Amino acid sequence: MRKRNKPWIEKELENNSRIMKNPTTKKGKWHETLKGPIYLEIGCGKGKFAIDNANINRDINFIGFEKEEQVIAMGVRESKNIEPPLTNLKFINGNVEDILDYFEKGEINRLYINFCDPWRNRKKWFKRRLTHSNFLKLYEGLFEDECEIFFKTDNRELFEFSLNEFCGNNWQLSNISLNLHQSEFHLSGKNIVTEYEKKFSDLGQPIYRLEARKKL
Amino acid sequence: MRKRNKPWIEKELENNSRIMKNPTTKKGKWHETLKGPIYLEIGCGKGKFAIDNANINRDINFIGFEKEEQVIAMGVRESKNIEPPLTNLKFINGNVEDILDYFEKGEINRLYINFCDPWRNRKKWFKRRLTHSNFLKLYEGLFEDECEIFFKTDNRELFEFSLNEFCGNNWQLSNISLNLHQSEFHLSGKNIVTEYEKKFSDLGQPIYRLEARKKL
Repeated sequence: MRKRNKPWIEKELENNSRIMKNPTTKKGKWHETLKGPIYLEIGCGKGKFAIDNANINRDINFIGFEKEEQVIAMGVRESKNIEPPLTNLKFINGNVEDILDYFEKGEINRLYINFCDPWRNRKKWFKRRLTHSNFLKLYEGLFEDECEIFFKTDNRELFEFSLNEFCGNNWQLSNISLNLHQSEFHLSGKNIVTEYEKKFSDLGQPIYRLEARKKL
Repeated sequence: MRKRNKPWIEKELENNSRIMKNPTTKKGKWHETLKGPIYLEIGCGKGKFAIDNANINRDINFIGFEKEEQVIAMGVRESKNIEPPLTNLKFINGNVEDILDYFEKGEINRLYINFCDPWRNRKKWFKRRLTHSNFLKLYEGLFEDECEIFFKTDNRELFEFSLNEFCGNNWQLSNISLNLHQSEFHLSGKNIVTEYEKKFSDLGQPIYRLEARKKL
């Protein structure tokens, strides 16, 4: 394990029960402790979206998944500030490639991908994008009957790529937005804004969003 | 019929055999004179796209469909300048609502909709957009086994709307582009640029495009 350069991170990751210590041992057992649907956010960053969502929707469970431990530690720490305490939020520090090591088919009800790394707009980098066909096929392993992914980005090239990947793999798209902050969904207050989203929107950039579903 | 304010228009529309005089009488008989596939462009305007396409693809037939006779007359006139003369291009002056009066099911192989009027981005105007569900259902009547529509616009709101309409009606989308003039399709020279497209692209606006197919 890489040396942690901030002592609070170690303390946070070791002492806070919201971050799962041995998450692979929970595979197939998530519903023993989490009652109700489980929504998973991959690449949750500092966790604002997952925390806000869990706070507003107390009857739904949220799991924030992030590979950078220094980043996820901030989310873990931040989540303690919510009152009453969140019993419906967990964090996993892991790699998305290993996601099926953590969940049994059917344990996840919805996947969120928010402002993931767009990588360079060159073919050799496309495989790294979290909406690449290979990943879409991987995610299908999380769901029982119907897959559901909600995706947002500020990056036009990534969104264009993602539209084509979803369509090319027979996902059914809806609520596609090419300027989310002017949409009914956002203006009615239903859109939970991520940290990146606020930053890019404040710069005047349009935000893109879609909902994708696929029957298995 | 509205009074024509330019004498050349009358002359052009009456004397040029490329504009169909009684197009409804051709219903079910288009292939008697036009050998090979027929691609129809609705709202062809001054016809540049249909003319260029017909010129490059001599083995495919193109029909430009336009409601404004003064506008279509310009296309009809322009089409005479191509050498060798185009035998694979026709024009119809008509309303899109009546399109099934002109063609029998299966007579059309592809539909082009280029830079149609976006109308205002308000619900009460959506029904006028040429990619509204009602129109998509209408177009299905043109095709035999598989519908095919190629759509371009400079208008982000119209494109967003269209993405949702196509997806909501179970059309399969591909080659979706949110910045056509940076796409492989355009850069390889395969994109035939319309008059509107050149104008808006020169202003620095992105051009949107998609291909939509539906099995019947």
